[in-house]
Amino acid sequence: MDDRHEPQPSSRDASTDHDVHELIRRRWSPLAFSSQPVADRDLRSVLEAARWGPSCFNEQPWRYIVARREQEAEFARMLSCLVEKNQRWAQAAPVLMLSVARLAFAANDRPNRHALHDVGLATAQLSLQAAALGLGVHQMAGFSPDRARELYAIPDSFEPVAAIALGYPGAPDQLPEDLRARDRGARIRHPQAEFVFAGTWDTPLS
Amino acid sequence: MDDRHEPQPSSRDASTDHDVHELIRRRWSPLAFSSQPVADRDLRSVLEAARWGPSCFNEQPWRYIVARREQEAEFARMLSCLVEKNQRWAQAAPVLMLSVARLAFAANDRPNRHALHDVGLATAQLSLQAAALGLGVHQMAGFSPDRARELYAIPDSFEPVAAIALGYPGAPDQLPEDLRARDRGARIRHPQAEFVFAGTWDTPLS
Repeated sequence: MDDRHEPQPSSRDASTDHDVHELIRRRWSPLAFSSQPVADRDLRSVLEAARWGPSCFNEQPWRYIVARREQEAEFARMLSCLVEKNQRWAQAAPVLMLSVARLAFAANDRPNRHALHDVGLATAQLSLQAAALGLGVHQMAGFSPDRARELYAIPDSFEPVAAIALGYPGAPDQLPEDLRARDRGARIRHPQAEFVFAGTWDTPLS
Repeated sequence: MDDRHEPQPSSRDASTDHDVHELIRRRWSPLAFSSQPVADRDLRSVLEAARWGPSCFNEQPWRYIVARREQEAEFARMLSCLVEKNQRWAQAAPVLMLSVARLAFAANDRPNRHALHDVGLATAQLSLQAAALGLGVHQMAGFSPDRARELYAIPDSFEPVAAIALGYPGAPDQLPEDLRARDRGARIRHPQAEFVFAGTWDTPLS
């Protein structure tokens, strides 16, 4: 068995109220990235996981634009799309990506209400494949879709969705001081009673 | 080890071009469901996986309304939200759900551009947890959001996103004849060169 796939219990594991698969328990969004590069085959595996996501009418509305640190100018270009607050930590990640959604169905050009939703489905698979390889993914809403559109000539029929940092989690002490606590802060979620309903709205499933 | 977690190679496994974790390879969207009920603890695990999804500002905009076959009237009510074409097969599933998105941030009521995207992230985790338990998830765009809103008193600030069938995959010969081929048809996806770009739009990552 490939030892990269072995579960590594970590203080970042989710404190679940019910059993979940270790891949889901282990996934989290690091702010601190190590300088270790991501191997080509691992980057392809992560994107392959996105490829096999489900989508409405199998439209596969997701696109990913990738910039690797090794290509310095390309990396700097993508980094420049992020808000300054995110640049501060994401500049250390070995890979940056942008997810992009095709807003209409290819077959008939009608609006796809599920375009962003289905990009979410694909990116979740990407993130869990990253977790399987010991990698971390941190998605950001804090970037400029307009700048991304201009820099990458993204057509009007597509919408830039999220910026994505990918790499091996690093030591929080490499982060600017004000970000360290955020990297290691408690992971919290609403209990199921607040979002799982039955019968009618706001009535918890019993 | 719980034998429900053992990989079961199947003809439905994705034919990937690059290695992916077996959970991602095994996930598919069955049309045929067995009558075997879903245990309470498994349903909770599946929803717990959604709970631990990432989201913009940790907003967790996802809500799920659940109807179990055992509660016949409730089940029929949710089934009535589906378009007839989907009712034909989804009526056999032991669990139906609706995913719903909160469209604005709770903190400041500003529009959340990533609301549906983040529901997708959560539902992908739900689907992979289902796969880990040998269950299948089939999401549907084919339902009436208006009817769902009315039946479940879904507030205007939320949007019904997708209907979800959950259960153990069943034998395709229990399906209406015209649906059998669809349940077992080839699983196809665009190659990475069509959705993974670098440098500029439509230029494949090399």
